Amino acid sequence: MSPQMALPVFDPAAIKKAVAPQLVLDTIRDALIAHAEGRTSVPPPLHMDFPEAGGDCHVKAGWITGTTDFTVKIATGFYRNPALDLPTNHGLVCVVSAHTGQIRALLDDRGLLTAWRTAAAGALITHVMARPDATTLAVYGTGEQARLQATWLAKLRPLGTVLVHGRNQHKAAALCNDLTAHGLPARPASAQQAATADIIITTTPATAPVLNAAHVREGAHVTGIGTDMPHKNELPPALFHRAELIATDDHAQCLDHGDFGHAVRAGATTRDSDIPAGLLLKASVDRPDTAITAADLTGIGALDAALASAVLGRLLP
Amino acid sequence: MSPQMALPVFDPAAIKKAVAPQLVLDTIRDALIAHAEGRTSVPPPLHMDFPEAGGDCHVKAGWITGTTDFTVKIATGFYRNPALDLPTNHGLVCVVSAHTGQIRALLDDRGLLTAWRTAAAGALITHVMARPDATTLAVYGTGEQARLQATWLAKLRPLGTVLVHGRNQHKAAALCNDLTAHGLPARPASAQQAATADIIITTTPATAPVLNAAHVREGAHVTGIGTDMPHKNELPPALFHRAELIATDDHAQCLDHGDFGHAVRAGATTRDSDIPAGLLLKASVDRPDTAITAADLTGIGALDAALASAVLGRLLP
Repeated sequence: MSPQMALPVFDPAAIKKAVAPQLVLDTIRDALIAHAEGRTSVPPPLHMDFPEAGGDCHVKAGWITGTTDFTVKIATGFYRNPALDLPTNHGLVCVVSAHTGQIRALLDDRGLLTAWRTAAAGALITHVMARPDATTLAVYGTGEQARLQATWLAKLRPLGTVLVHGRNQHKAAALCNDLTAHGLPARPASAQQAATADIIITTTPATAPVLNAAHVREGAHVTGIGTDMPHKNELPPALFHRAELIATDDHAQCLDHGDFGHAVRAGATTRDSDIPAGLLLKASVDRPDTAITAADLTGIGALDAALASAVLGRLLP
Repeated sequence: MSPQMALPVFDPAAIKKAVAPQLVLDTIRDALIAHAEGRTSVPPPLHMDFPEAGGDCHVKAGWITGTTDFTVKIATGFYRNPALDLPTNHGLVCVVSAHTGQIRALLDDRGLLTAWRTAAAGALITHVMARPDATTLAVYGTGEQARLQATWLAKLRPLGTVLVHGRNQHKAAALCNDLTAHGLPARPASAQQAATADIIITTTPATAPVLNAAHVREGAHVTGIGTDMPHKNELPPALFHRAELIATDDHAQCLDHGDFGHAVRAGATTRDSDIPAGLLLKASVDRPDTAITAADLTGIGALDAALASAVLGRLLP
């Protein structure tokens, strides 16, 4: 019994072949603006637990109001999988017509689109908030997002040396080699050294701040992209206290489970001190050269819909 | 750019070729028992509305606790589709390993599995609650479920004449011809005639009772399968008042949006007068020959998981 090709299913290789980073950046820029303007629809997610297997399943849907497609994203995390030689995370993005409800295609993307939209959102917001002449980038973390944040930001502005801070020296060295080989000179740095860069991006699963706010220089910009659950925390409250401009990708989410929320609860800033990140992409940011700026990104479901729809436009011409 | 076969997708033709009704009946019997015994997990569904297109999307998940697979079912209803020559409903069942979270396959079943599990649940419960010597069946409604309820019940017990009551005479005649051609002699009947049958199954989207409880004979059994939303109602409260045995597929659901709930709110029966339908499948039902019995089925999400998993066992040996 062979499977029937009733629905097109695209894997990461097909998606990578069809889509250039510029399309992702353009799509995510528009989607961040749409979200800031209230033109997105994101229902409460569906959640299931599998305690005996150490797993869970989240289903998230999103739509940029008025656009062609919405998406339903199924994502599982089964934390004992590495012992079985299987990836911890699995998932699927289902692209559905918002005009007729017909399922157009499935993206068996193995997390690729989520990684891309996170990278694009981080690079876009960082670029627009950092000083125009800032060139030194530091990344905290040595995973896929650390690599993507550096390489995608380099598509938006010239970068000098990239400082890489990671707890694992081998992984930090490997990322430096990788970035250097791709034309971005990089070297490992201590947490304190990294905190003195012009531009700082944190990409870790940390549960306590990874840098000391006192080490951050005047004129620096800091973007945190790793804090997506209440128990996580990358950026110290004192950084938000020092910051003259704070952007959040979603005000309610960042208050609930972002670094911004930690800072508000610590009394370091007020709950109305942030502005929507998407609004900064519409007009140039007015920032004094000596100001510290900060962005807290927790991930927006509607961006998945925008990106999946754009990707499908290339895959199903 | 051709789609990649990263995930198997099975269409209705493949499913029909691989699966016999007996597998569906056996699987749904076990799943109804599991649900009655509390061995199912059904999280609150995810819901999205598309008011401008007259559409909505529901995502439902279900799991028989401890079994191999769970399912995530995406279902859309876009009510202006007929004008576009497209089906109103579309959907997809995603079968996921409950041990590793890996997505095993997609069933692009066009509603087939939902129709099968509804038919199997109706036939199983009706068969076990009806008098052993009852042979006259009446169905209210002329759609796919009316046909399936009659033909699947005939797999479980010998049936005599089938009475078909429908508002549309052409559809009623067509269903009678179809059933007769398949060895089940059938003829159209008025609502009052149909109400005098030994066994009555209602399969309509009615919003007011389709039969008069006073016409139902002593010793008859009535199963309602069409009431799945609060505004729908097929069986009159007076029927539940007369019934000596009431079964519900899910107590809370039937109270909330089944015919049983209408009867309780009308004061015709008490909210604890029902028993779980699945329990009746474990042991023979003790019913006096003159008792009227009633079953209210609203549809259980975990049955989807059981059936999809069993179907996949045949498709991916």
